Amino acid sequence: MKKDTNRPAAHPRVIIVGAGFGGLRVARGVRGAPLDVTVLDKHNYHTFIPLLYQVATAGLEPEAIAHPVRRIVTAPNVRFRLACVTGVDLENRLVHSDSGEFPYDYLVLAAGSVTNFFGLDSVARHAATLRELDEAETVRDRVLASFEAAAAEQDVDRKRALMTTVIVGGGPTGVELAGALAELHRHVLPRDFPELDVSKARILLLEASDRLLETMPERMQRKALEKLREMGVDVQLGTRVTDADEGGVTLEDGRRIDAGAVVWVAGMRASPLAQVLNIPLRAGGRVAVARSLNLPERPEVYVIGDMAHAGGPESAGYPMLAPVAIQQGVLVAANIMRQTESKKPRPFKYKDPGTMVTIGRASAVARVYGVPVSGFLAWVLWLTVHIVWLIGFRNRALVLVDWAWNYFTYERGVRLIRRRS
Amino acid sequence: MKKDTNRPAAHPRVIIVGAGFGGLRVARGVRGAPLDVTVLDKHNYHTFIPLLYQVATAGLEPEAIAHPVRRIVTAPNVRFRLACVTGVDLENRLVHSDSGEFPYDYLVLAAGSVTNFFGLDSVARHAATLRELDEAETVRDRVLASFEAAAAEQDVDRKRALMTTVIVGGGPTGVELAGALAELHRHVLPRDFPELDVSKARILLLEASDRLLETMPERMQRKALEKLREMGVDVQLGTRVTDADEGGVTLEDGRRIDAGAVVWVAGMRASPLAQVLNIPLRAGGRVAVARSLNLPERPEVYVIGDMAHAGGPESAGYPMLAPVAIQQGVLVAANIMRQTESKKPRPFKYKDPGTMVTIGRASAVARVYGVPVSGFLAWVLWLTVHIVWLIGFRNRALVLVDWAWNYFTYERGVRLIRRRS
Repeated sequence: MKKDTNRPAAHPRVIIVGAGFGGLRVARGVRGAPLDVTVLDKHNYHTFIPLLYQVATAGLEPEAIAHPVRRIVTAPNVRFRLACVTGVDLENRLVHSDSGEFPYDYLVLAAGSVTNFFGLDSVARHAATLRELDEAETVRDRVLASFEAAAAEQDVDRKRALMTTVIVGGGPTGVELAGALAELHRHVLPRDFPELDVSKARILLLEASDRLLETMPERMQRKALEKLREMGVDVQLGTRVTDADEGGVTLEDGRRIDAGAVVWVAGMRASPLAQVLNIPLRAGGRVAVARSLNLPERPEVYVIGDMAHAGGPESAGYPMLAPVAIQQGVLVAANIMRQTESKKPRPFKYKDPGTMVTIGRASAVARVYGVPVSGFLAWVLWLTVHIVWLIGFRNRALVLVDWAWNYFTYERGVRLIRRRS
Repeated sequence: MKKDTNRPAAHPRVIIVGAGFGGLRVARGVRGAPLDVTVLDKHNYHTFIPLLYQVATAGLEPEAIAHPVRRIVTAPNVRFRLACVTGVDLENRLVHSDSGEFPYDYLVLAAGSVTNFFGLDSVARHAATLRELDEAETVRDRVLASFEAAAAEQDVDRKRALMTTVIVGGGPTGVELAGALAELHRHVLPRDFPELDVSKARILLLEASDRLLETMPERMQRKALEKLREMGVDVQLGTRVTDADEGGVTLEDGRRIDAGAVVWVAGMRASPLAQVLNIPLRAGGRVAVARSLNLPERPEVYVIGDMAHAGGPESAGYPMLAPVAIQQGVLVAANIMRQTESKKPRPFKYKDPGTMVTIGRASAVARVYGVPVSGFLAWVLWLTVHIVWLIGFRNRALVLVDWAWNYFTYERGVRLIRRRS
């Protein structure tokens, strides 16, 4: 592997691994500073993960929630490199990648999280997931291809199975996906498939615990459950999936559910990059960091967002959410600049803005700075926050066109099957 | 294989193979007629092929030029089936597919064309092409990934090679692709890649004959050549590619051109489906049809568009263009209805509306009902025709947003690398 020597390092070199919410915020925070900054990511685009479920349900095209990193990273002292990071040599301060080695003076690991299958290999092999753009497109392809197969199927039981989608995991992603899918079933698919009785189609949302949306206030949990059931989603609490194959899932109690598509959104764990560091990991494979978000033994190495576990070993760590990564990114940019001035890095304090979960058309549940909100108001709030939040005008315009179109016509434009499995 | 018996055949059964411009026009023409119609396609979407080059150059997202067939085919007597047709039993009037067998009383073959590599296997293996949505995305991925690789490359020659794109074929597709790529090089990539000297990047357009745009008036051919050269495209006429590998192409005269991406748009031939019919084929593998567009020996079988060769063996056949397929589709719908009433099918007469080729920003050459037009006027004409032509309001709105955005900002929003090869 050759070393990256494109530019002389007149300033301290900062390598940021990951162009997610956290990594990009660090890059933004050090714009114009006397630092030589390189952002590495395996994709040349930033993915707006909170809206992946809309790609999965044909509401948005993948391009609407992906933004070229080189468009975002535009400061003269910040550059981007398309690179898949394979390891870090903490001793010699080197990042290894498929695109060469990158020496650093400061390192920010912000590679996010991956799906956690909790050791269920058959599920990992057969279920679709929802953490990457391609995966969202795969969910869309599988659901639509199953309905196409149902249209060609003569056997009544097989037909019904093909019209069944199983979503595993009752967290925000599972709830939003189930809601959006229910709308697709109700408003779009009956028109698309006049030869099918779409009212016989099923959406199952399976959750191992006894409630949806663990982190929401109890009243919001109940509202979400009611709303989903009202929309025709078969929510089954206390239901644990133990096995999956091409035709469906098997539950802990031995029950079998045949399905055309199975989507696993039951958990996340830190990016596998955390494991190659040879440092202590906490629950979910997250890296234990100091309160100032760097490694206690390596103050020049920061870990943020889903990859990081701040707080003592007994704490649950901050939730794996964009606002945490963003706030940590802001702090880390400041902390690196403090370090270059020989000042002590500051500790992280999370200001919880709350969470929002949309449930289909014109309905949502939210907790905004501790205050529970639900219904149409919560949905308008959700819409506004997400539109403002989406990086880049063009994506905002695209998403607005799509959403306005969907809202007034009950239509989903992007129901293409790009790859048949 | 099971037979498709979803519905009793109270009316004559019409099977349309292909949801391109021709097939969809037939489906539209028989809406509401006493016919039981099924449209088969291997994709669940119609591809607006004339704009593939814009997807390939990051100007449009793939979804903007793809439209769900089930949205277009909405009449009660017309249905859609996702099926890859593998053969036709002309004797027993059966279409074979990966989704079952379809008996017919009337058959319309409208499966279009594929890339013609003229037996150059190495080119078929290594060059990208531009006939399908996925292929357009692949061209985009390859060009952008090559620039990313150039950014990581230390060797000056390799760097330059990675910034080189070779387009083979000086027909409308090659000219439009070269023009759009030149604009990407000029307005977008220098900003995206400040670490590269993009002025050293090359676009080569290689054409085996002595002129571009064979079917255009000579004045337009010269204008296109001038315009492309003015935009920095290295147009080489009388230049024949004989070999390709991962790193570039070899020419007939032994010259070697190293390139990061090679796109082959030098020819088309009829869909391979034509070959399984066991009937005489003409130049380009097209099916010889009667003037009424059906098979002389099998009047119930129609072949239209790129797959069909109408006129005597000595004629060149109609050009492989959307207007031909559309006009033939209109006639075939009428002819089938005439046949059900025991009337003689009518012969096809082509009303040539002309052709238009856009060359980058605000410039085009056109021949409109025989009148040559060029420059800004031709471009506005081109824009209008394509916007009106795009099926479906949503796609029109999307394309308008994208085009307006591109026009005023010199920006290309969709420069994502979805798959690295």
